[in-house]
Amino acid sequence: MSRFFSDKYSRLTPYTPGEQPKTRKFVKLNTNESPFGPSPLAAEYAAKAAESLQLYSDIECTALTGRLAEMYGLERENILFTNGSDEALNFAFMAFCDEDHPAVFPDITYGFYPVFAALNNVPFEEIPLNGDFTVNVDDYCGIGKTIFLANPNAPTGIALPLSDIERIIASNPDSIVVVDEAYVDFGAESAVSLIGRYDNLLVTQTFSKSRSLAGGRLGMAIACPALIRDLNTIKFSTNPYNVNSLTQAAGLGALEDDAYFRENCARIIENRAYLTDGLQKLGFVTTESSANFVFAMHPKLDGEQFYLQLKERGVLIRHFTLDRIRGFNRITVGTRSQLDTLLDAAKDILGGIV
Amino acid sequence: MSRFFSDKYSRLTPYTPGEQPKTRKFVKLNTNESPFGPSPLAAEYAAKAAESLQLYSDIECTALTGRLAEMYGLERENILFTNGSDEALNFAFMAFCDEDHPAVFPDITYGFYPVFAALNNVPFEEIPLNGDFTVNVDDYCGIGKTIFLANPNAPTGIALPLSDIERIIASNPDSIVVVDEAYVDFGAESAVSLIGRYDNLLVTQTFSKSRSLAGGRLGMAIACPALIRDLNTIKFSTNPYNVNSLTQAAGLGALEDDAYFRENCARIIENRAYLTDGLQKLGFVTTESSANFVFAMHPKLDGEQFYLQLKERGVLIRHFTLDRIRGFNRITVGTRSQLDTLLDAAKDILGGIV
Repeated sequence: MSRFFSDKYSRLTPYTPGEQPKTRKFVKLNTNESPFGPSPLAAEYAAKAAESLQLYSDIECTALTGRLAEMYGLERENILFTNGSDEALNFAFMAFCDEDHPAVFPDITYGFYPVFAALNNVPFEEIPLNGDFTVNVDDYCGIGKTIFLANPNAPTGIALPLSDIERIIASNPDSIVVVDEAYVDFGAESAVSLIGRYDNLLVTQTFSKSRSLAGGRLGMAIACPALIRDLNTIKFSTNPYNVNSLTQAAGLGALEDDAYFRENCARIIENRAYLTDGLQKLGFVTTESSANFVFAMHPKLDGEQFYLQLKERGVLIRHFTLDRIRGFNRITVGTRSQLDTLLDAAKDILGGIV
Repeated sequence: MSRFFSDKYSRLTPYTPGEQPKTRKFVKLNTNESPFGPSPLAAEYAAKAAESLQLYSDIECTALTGRLAEMYGLERENILFTNGSDEALNFAFMAFCDEDHPAVFPDITYGFYPVFAALNNVPFEEIPLNGDFTVNVDDYCGIGKTIFLANPNAPTGIALPLSDIERIIASNPDSIVVVDEAYVDFGAESAVSLIGRYDNLLVTQTFSKSRSLAGGRLGMAIACPALIRDLNTIKFSTNPYNVNSLTQAAGLGALEDDAYFRENCARIIENRAYLTDGLQKLGFVTTESSANFVFAMHPKLDGEQFYLQLKERGVLIRHFTLDRIRGFNRITVGTRSQLDTLLDAAKDILGGIV
């Protein structure tokens, strides 16, 4: 920290992204990237857009917004595109949380929520998940705080049914409920269908996982027009050109190639079952995942040791040091061949200890 | 504004970007875009990067940072790439301004500074430029506040010599001086050469103008390692993947094609002289611009009327409503043919009033 750094941020502990090693080729199952490349249409549109990069990007993301509105049966005014869904989440912390509107989220969830809260000097409460890592819905009903719920949750992968999400929204009419649907396309029910009915609902989604555009940084906020206007006030006071032209083009290509998207989601859901089954046969305990990853622990394996021994064998998974989950690891659902490599390595590691 | 919007931001007036009309084809001289397309290498690298968009972007912008460090004779630790230089500027307002470190900048300068200050709840002072729109250097010497100076300044185009910039930096050893060099490549002296000597200097630059990548959103902060670390604390608490893969690739291509960059800068400087000369022959008063735009007024023309009448004739320039400069307009230096269209239209408009 330099002697010039503002006291406001001097106690800030930044988010730690998953490691992206450059020195060795790993089977990368640690950052929930799609094992499938982007749609050829996404790549084609991006390449085309590269030719006119001297012009500023469209601050309204007109084509992208129009297409998504049509697909979701919404109006343009319901949608704001952002530089990844992290930006949408940060905007939500800025716009809808303060001293009088503290944030609340589970103790085990996306690790960026407490960082956004600290960044924006927002008081927050972490509500413990149940022992089986499920959300106790009653904990959130009528709580009167700005609620952040990842659905499916990360890193557990466990989803709440839409009826539970609606119960939380309906019981907090004077507080914003943010439903972070980064992983929704892999088997959970989206709350987008509730947008027209609740003015306190904000849904965030991303193109990073199910649409294979993690490198493009494209996310969105979906809500009633008044909330989107608030987020636009933040956007136009922060970075009006937040989504570049190349990414807008790639995103449009990804949206237009809906068949490719659906096929990849189906393949990942299939591979998730294969991975879950393989792990369970080796004695792992897994949560019921609706995401593109599996959260697993083995009664005979220390979580960190398993992660480190896999890394030695060229397989990267994500380990968390949080107390309640230090026995677990989060494993991204890759291709069959990647998963076989992982399962073989796990068998090998287990062979050494039993 | 929704009933949920935080009081913190309820009085925020967002920045107004230059208009980007979609309905009609204009000769666009209003947003300081380059009239020349990006380097073919930039487009080629971006197209290539589009094929592996399923992977997250490199949070360290390794290739880009290495290349720029080499070109500027700096270390990697001196550089942070951002989502446009607007993001670098916002990070600087966050990191280096607060109640005890108010911001200070000219009354006529980049219109985003007061917005960033308001967004971050930072008190700020605007120091009037001299009558001829030059900066009075003494006003800033030993002022002991966080200084933001665009050099060349916008929308005046007027540059300070490096010796004056250094005097300001040296006389404020306990305050950060941010030198915003968005337009530096068109004829001003960069303060990057001072980085090694002053720990209170932060330079921001952009690929939007001289490197024809406005649509890509790529900017950077250049400073001593301690300041860059502070900015990284903000970045990793806000949006670790702030620069997407496509833009990183395009930026690298643009850096590698240095000949193309130099040639375009030279052509724009040449065209600036042509535009200035043409305007002066029509009776316009212009400032001495070191940027890719000319700031001009005509004693017989109302500034807004001139802007509106040009717009009717299919030529867009940028008008500002700020009192001191409402007689002026900012005209981007385009191609010869664009400038001829503008000059002909101006002659036509003037013919109607004399």
